[in-house]
Amino acid sequence: MEHNLQLLAFFLFFLLLGSMAAPASRRAKDRRPCRRLVFYFHDIVYNGKNSKNATSAIVGAPAWANRTAMAGQNHFGDMVVFDDPITLDNNLHSTPVGRAQGFYLYDKKDVFTAWLGFSFVFNSTQHKGSLNFAGADPLMNKTRDVSVIGGTGDFFMARGIATLMTDAFEGEVYFRLRVDIKLYECW
Amino acid sequence: MEHNLQLLAFFLFFLLLGSMAAPASRRAKDRRPCRRLVFYFHDIVYNGKNSKNATSAIVGAPAWANRTAMAGQNHFGDMVVFDDPITLDNNLHSTPVGRAQGFYLYDKKDVFTAWLGFSFVFNSTQHKGSLNFAGADPLMNKTRDVSVIGGTGDFFMARGIATLMTDAFEGEVYFRLRVDIKLYECW
Amino acid sequence: MEHNLQLLAFFLFFLLLGSMAAPASRRAKDRRPCRRLVFYFHDIVYNGKNSKNATSAIVGAPAWANRTAMAGQNHFGDMVVFDDPITLDNNLHSTPVGRAQGFYLYDKKDVFTAWLGFSFVFNSTQHKGSLNFAGADPLMNKTRDVSVIGGTGDFFMARGIATLMTDAFEGEVYFRLRVDIKLYECW
Repeated sequence: MEHNLQLLAFFLFFLLLGSMAAPASRRAKDRRPCRRLVFYFHDIVYNGKNSKNATSAIVGAPAWANRTAMAGQNHFGDMVVFDDPITLDNNLHSTPVGRAQGFYLYDKKDVFTAWLGFSFVFNSTQHKGSLNFAGADPLMNKTRDVSVIGGTGDFFMARGIATLMTDAFEGEVYFRLRVDIKLYECW
Repeated sequence: MEHNLQLLAFFLFFLLLGSMAAPASRRAKDRRPCRRLVFYFHDIVYNGKNSKNATSAIVGAPAWANRTAMAGQNHFGDMVVFDDPITLDNNLHSTPVGRAQGFYLYDKKDVFTAWLGFSFVFNSTQHKGSLNFAGADPLMNKTRDVSVIGGTGDFFMARGIATLMTDAFEGEVYFRLRVDIKLYECW
Repeated sequence: MEHNLQLLAFFLFFLLLGSMAAPASRRAKDRRPCRRLVFYFHDIVYNGKNSKNATSAIVGAPAWANRTAMAGQNHFGDMVVFDDPITLDNNLHSTPVGRAQGFYLYDKKDVFTAWLGFSFVFNSTQHKGSLNFAGADPLMNKTRDVSVIGGTGDFFMARGIATLMTDAFEGEVYFRLRVDIKLYECW
């Protein structure tokens, strides 16, 4: 009996050593989100006539285009700055829970595709703080994944993936994105 | 006695299993910084007359504005590229320990607010390497948090939060930011 | 003997407690890459004459420059949007395994240096998904490190360092970068 206990103790000892030696970066990581949130945001691009309603504007354009209308060749080279309302449902007129702020740029001549750098800035009873995003947005795909690269306030040090889906698209003036945020690092 | 020892061994065994099963992303995380640094950086915006001293320039602007003077409506749509000296105290003429390089864009019509993407590039006896930042900067708040999204050299793989504070602001030409960097992931 | 076993059990117990108390963010981290990949990408800047071949275009420029030719003072203030082929070797005409999409901006008057925000979007038999990058690129250094700030698909939640090297440079029209990607967080 004593012998068995000794064996067990040694077994436990080495198991423990192994557990401590594995650095954090190589440990098993869980692919289930530790937090999940869904929002919508609404973008109304300035087109020379809608300055009251517009929530975004072209601020950079290639040599062959201007900053009032989107450029040809799938808008290649257009850079747009935005400050868009975030809502909990897909209704533009719902009370916003925050603002989506940042920029997107169209970066391909052959097909619609964009690159995004932006933040969700929350200021509601439910959420205070921000989430920061960056990544490629191949618009023509039904869903696209960008990275959640950081967060502040309620989203302190968050990391994850945001799945974008175009929920509505009206010409070159209005679009609405559904953003399914899955955080895999929560603090 | 033998029975007690057996119980203890089994208790330890299951405690250990529990410890190993928790993936790194769900483990308790420490909200005390593993490293903390404070710097200042100084931005002198080109305004058509100060090309010798200017450290930044408007490179994108909306259709209704130009690139020499800041746009109306809280500068909405202005995009500025900068290469600013970083100092250890709040004196513009102190020996720089590095350069703050990147861009900011004003992204809201109703109120001053910006979005930042930039790096601190250090080249001093104390620090070599870089820290990369991204996030929303609601200028009118006393302090604002942006994300430290990565680092290189002495700041290899760093992540954290940088708290920005406007330390001085002189019209549309000069501002100075105090940056309180708190790293929570150190390698 | 029983006494010894009791001692061992208590020793194990406290060792285990210590192991559980160390939060993930402070554990020993491994500085060997968990994944390593090397790619090349090719940038052909639009210069007013090469619209068929060009893969990038100036979309922002300071007040003293235009968007057809690079600005003086080391291109300070020029912002370029790109959609460049990624290849496995240094041959522009090799079959691309994906596209490098995003922007760079020249951010210093005294010397060539840039800031990069971009993604590698893979669509080959070997890799699906994307890697997102951000950081300073002091061009004149032989190698420069930027941050891998996130990834999707095959590169789910990746973080790491990418070492850039200018592999070729032909005037102001063509350059080729070698990108040595070292991931230190793999999921």
